Order: sequence, then structure tokens, then C-alpha cells
Amino acid sequence: MSGKDYHGKLDVENGRVDLSHGSGGRAMAQLISGLFHQAFGNEWLARCNDQSAFEVAAGRMVMTTDGYVVSPLFFPGGNIGSLAVHGTINDVVMAGARPLYLSASFIIEEGFRFSDLGTIAQSMGVAARGAGVYIITGDTKVVERGKADGLFISTTGIGVLADGLDLSADKARIGDRVLVSGSLGDHGVAIMSTRQNAALQVEIVSDSASLHDLVAVMMAAGGRGIRVMRDPTRGGLAATLNEIAHQSGLGFRLQEAAIPVKPAVAATCELLGLDPIHVANEGKLVAIVAPDVADAVLAAMKAHPLGCDAADIGEAVADDHKFVQLATSFGGGRIVDWLSGEQLPRIC
Amino acid sequence: MSGKDYHGKLDVENGRVDLSHGSGGRAMAQLISGLFHQAFGNEWLARCNDQSAFEVAAGRMVMTTDGYVVSPLFFPGGNIGSLAVHGTINDVVMAGARPLYLSASFIIEEGFRFSDLGTIAQSMGVAARGAGVYIITGDTKVVERGKADGLFISTTGIGVLADGLDLSADKARIGDRVLVSGSLGDHGVAIMSTRQNAALQVEIVSDSASLHDLVAVMMAAGGRGIRVMRDPTRGGLAATLNEIAHQSGLGFRLQEAAIPVKPAVAATCELLGLDPIHVANEGKLVAIVAPDVADAVLAAMKAHPLGCDAADIGEAVADDHKFVQLATSFGGGRIVDWLSGEQLPRIC
Repeated sequence: MSGKDYHGKLDVENGRVDLSHGSGGRAMAQLISGLFHQAFGNEWLARCNDQSAFEVAAGRMVMTTDGYVVSPLFFPGGNIGSLAVHGTINDVVMAGARPLYLSASFIIEEGFRFSDLGTIAQSMGVAARGAGVYIITGDTKVVERGKADGLFISTTGIGVLADGLDLSADKARIGDRVLVSGSLGDHGVAIMSTRQNAALQVEIVSDSASLHDLVAVMMAAGGRGIRVMRDPTRGGLAATLNEIAHQSGLGFRLQEAAIPVKPAVAATCELLGLDPIHVANEGKLVAIVAPDVADAVLAAMKAHPLGCDAADIGEAVADDHKFVQLATSFGGGRIVDWLSGEQLPRIC
Repeated sequence: MSGKDYHGKLDVENGRVDLSHGSGGRAMAQLISGLFHQAFGNEWLARCNDQSAFEVAAGRMVMTTDGYVVSPLFFPGGNIGSLAVHGTINDVVMAGARPLYLSASFIIEEGFRFSDLGTIAQSMGVAARGAGVYIITGDTKVVERGKADGLFISTTGIGVLADGLDLSADKARIGDRVLVSGSLGDHGVAIMSTRQNAALQVEIVSDSASLHDLVAVMMAAGGRGIRVMRDPTRGGLAATLNEIAHQSGLGFRLQEAAIPVKPAVAATCELLGLDPIHVANEGKLVAIVAPDVADAVLAAMKAHPLGCDAADIGEAVADDHKFVQLATSFGGGRIVDWLSGEQLPRIC
């Protein structure tokens, strides 16, 4: 046994992950204490147990999980780490819950640079602290070169629900308004342009962000008039509204002209043959809201930095087919189905 | 749009996962409802929300997460799915907590067989129900062929702690006994023999199992005299005791002859050049127990089917070096360090 400390230093600048960092031995302990604890730093991780304990008040909680396999790992507006934290926080807050704690499971390909892992972990720490959330437990596995693609992260979040709150798609009613919190397609297009190295005039930046605060102001304005919220990630607005249509037994009629899309995103979508309503977002939400509170909720959204381009884009209608229909600017209409194939693999 | 139902049937027998099953669209919905909901079937998943809500009483909870990358995915005594559920439940119960809910994140390589995924999901459902636990939320991502190795699963578990209970390595005291719940090395050797296709006389079966019930009888017998429990997974008994030594500031002195190892496991370890105390277990625990309750706890373990080979293998001692020392059967001694390299990659 060497006299080396258990907390021996990693060469974060030049080193790389090897299989020993997933072995449960000394190298793994060094990676965890030297890189993850430093980035996430909180009292729970400092205890170095295989699980972390915390106090809760009696009531309802929510739990959600997501795997992140985005490629490339770094993109304009974020990286896989900030994306994982924002995305999981958003799934908690879409239920109307206050996020409390996260776990993070890392599956790392042998040869991955410590410096990249450090940057990603730091982004996770920043994103979590920004939402008042702690990453209290984690796990690290390493697989051989060629058996993964750099890094995959699975994050799980838990949060607390206000008393009696129960947002759910089946609460949607005919006449409810469909609100979106801002322009659609930014995340998906940012990833695709990075991947294709598209020589764009304007850099398109992912909208990846935590929506906890936006949701708080919406709940304050709309109360129980907010039936359901979803973040339109994979599959975009089209998939999200088709899901809600299926779960509520209603259809949706949208005004195409009302759907906010940035000109640069629209132009890039046309170039790449994509439709922005099928493209992933990572810092936007769709809310189905009772008509009597819709204006107040929309005003609250517009007053928030993450909702300044919010819009009322249509309504819930009776429809036995549960179709999502789009009235186009030219007076025509079309049905917006989910895509049955894959438009944008590994977008998140 | 076809008239096809949202819950369209998967060809589970012959089909394979493709990128569309991770897209957020119709194919993913079919995979989730046709395969995962069927295997995990519970009221939470049936609501098809991105998160699940549940009631809790006021008190302390624990949260833990693990990534599973075991290779091969199927092995004697289990598969990656049962392993993931047992392993995460065990990390919850090692804190003395009662496990309640799990989440599961699947990262799947394109081309993976539905039939294998179905078998794995069924095993997860069986393992969860066996421990009275529900898999209430999940996520599915698909990556291109060659960008993963079949299937990775990350599971997160939460549970509730009895009032005031706080097991932690720093509670260990000089003179405490070290108990193990059974023979060591079974899981790691089962995986290695499968991998090397070793022509063994006796098939060695993984010990993968949920220890919730064993821990319940131990807690009933030992109460607050149980200082800390750990499941000696990656890195085996050696890594676990070195961790506890580091966290408690104590050393451990073990009797080699007292450490239970099955003859077939010992023989295979010799053949493969492994030491059973470094080899992973997935259904065993190590408990550091106050001397006045050690006999009662050991008797309770031995009376339980998962603890019938339990043994008192040594004691906590004052040691500024925090060494784990082994008194060999020949009267000699050696220091059991953690391995600094990797002995058995992808064992869990």
C-alpha cells in the first residue's frame, strides 16, 4: 500500500478515464471525490454513502427519470450535463412540483477526457444550483472503448407537490387554450446545425433551461385553471399535443401563424427538411389552460424572461379522432400526426 | 394518419429496436405501452405522464442511483434487469430504509431484440414486485448500432427511513464486529465464467437478490446496534471495508478462515487468478455491529434464507493507517488494499 491519500489528485487537465475508474476501487474513489464532489459539492455527497437521506414533509411527491445520449456532447447553449439537469428539473416542474433533489448516473467510454467530464460536471452543478436543487447521489460506470459514445447520463429528479395539485392530461376540457412559452425548435436545430457543421449566418442556440421559475409565476396566475403542462422535447410540439389528445380524448385546433418560430430556425428547418413543430425543445413548455385564466397566465409568461415570446396558439376541441389540426396561414388545414419514424436521432 | 391505434402491437417475438423507438413519436409510445407497461404494470405508469406522483408521510427518505452495464446481459442467476432492480433496492435497504419506488432509464443499441428486452423487463417487474416496490417512471433512448453495447439500464430508488435511524460508516467503533451475510464472490465469478465460457464442473450462479427482508430481520434483532451496512458489489469485500475504514477512521482485522467462500468459487478464482475478497457480490451485505448485539444479529441472519451462510469475520480496531488486515490460516497476516486497477470490468 502506498502512502497515497484516498483523495489522491486526478490529473484533470491531461488525464483520461480508464476502466479502473469504474471498478469500485481507489481510482473510482479519486474520480468521484476529485471531480464530481467538487462540481456538485453538497453535504449529502460529502458523506460518501451509497445513498443519501433527506427530510420530507407529509404530502405528495413526484419522481421522474431521463437518459441523455445527445450527440455532440457540447453544443451552442449547453452540453449533455446542463441538458440533463434542466431536462429532469423540467419534468418535475411540469407536474407543478417544486424540484428538490437529483441523482446522476454516468456511463463513460474508456478514453474520455477528464477535462471534458469536469466541464460537464461543472455545468451540472451550476444548473442544479440555479434551480435550488442538489445532486445528492450518483454512480459511475466505465465501458471499453467502442462500447459507448463518449458519455451517457441518466438523471432522476424528485420534488414536492402543493397540496391537492394534480395536473394531468385527462383534465383538459373543450374550449381550453393551448399556450406555448416561446419559439419552437431551437434546441433540435442547434444540435442538427452543429452536427452538420452547417455554415449558418446566425448561430442558433439551444433553449436548454430550467423552467421552475416560469412555472411558479404561471401557477400563481392560473392556479387550478392550468390543466396540464408538458415540455415538448423529443417529437416536439406535435408529439406532445398528440399525447395529450390521446390521454384527454380531445382534439386540438391550432393556428399556424400563431406558433412562434425564430426566422433563423425556420430557415434552417427548411434547409434541413424539418418541420419546427416536430423538432425538440429543451426550455419550452406547452400548457393547456382553462379559457377564463388563459389571458392572465399568458401575461404572466410574457413578463418572465423565459416566456417573453409566449403565445396562445389554439384550443382544445371535441374530436373522436383525437386529431391535432393546424389551420394554415393560407386558410387551409392539415392534420399534425406524430412522426412514426425518426427525424432527429440523439437530440437529447 | 393511419387508423392504427396508439397502442399498436409490437412484434415482440421477431422485432428489433430501431432509432424510431427513441424518437418521442408513435413507435416509442408503442414500445413503452406494449413492452414496459406490460412488464411493470402499475397505476402510475398507466397515467402516461412524464413523472409520477405518490404520497409520503413526513420523515426521512433516501435516494440512490446505479448504472448497469454488465456484460453479458444474461448470466446464471439473472440478467441486467433483475440485477438493476435488486442492486438499487439493496442500496436503499443498506441505509436501513424501506424501498418504495424505482425509476428506470434504458439506453438501447439499435438492433436490440424486443424479445430480449421483453425478458429483461419482465425480470425487472418480477424483482420489483418481489420486494413490494413499484417502477413508477422510466425513459427510453436508442443510439445507433455500435454506439452502445446492447443495453444499459440506470435505476434510481427511493425509500423511507424509520424515525431517527441514521446508519453511517462514521458510527463504527473499536471492538465492533464485522458480519457478512454469506459466501463471497458468487456474482463476479458467475459473470467471469460465463464470459470466458469456462468449462466448469459446477455452474456458479450469481447471488443477485434483494436484501430488504434480510435487513428487516437484522434490524429487528440488532436495532441501533447496527452501525452501518453495505453491499460489497464492485471491488468486493476489500473495497467496502476500505471505504468504511476511511470513513470511520478505524482499521479492520479479519480472520481469513472465517470468510465464507464456496469451494467452486474458490477453485474458479484460483483458475482465473482472482481473490474472492475483491470479487463483486450482488446479494450479500457487510454489517458493522456493536459487540453486544452481534450474536443476536448473526443468529437472525442465519435463520433467514439469504443469510444461512452468514459469518462473523472480524472486528474494528484502532489503526491510524486505516488498514484492513487479514490474519491468514497459517498464522501470518496481510494488508487488504483496494485494487487500484481494474480486475473485473463491467461486472454490474
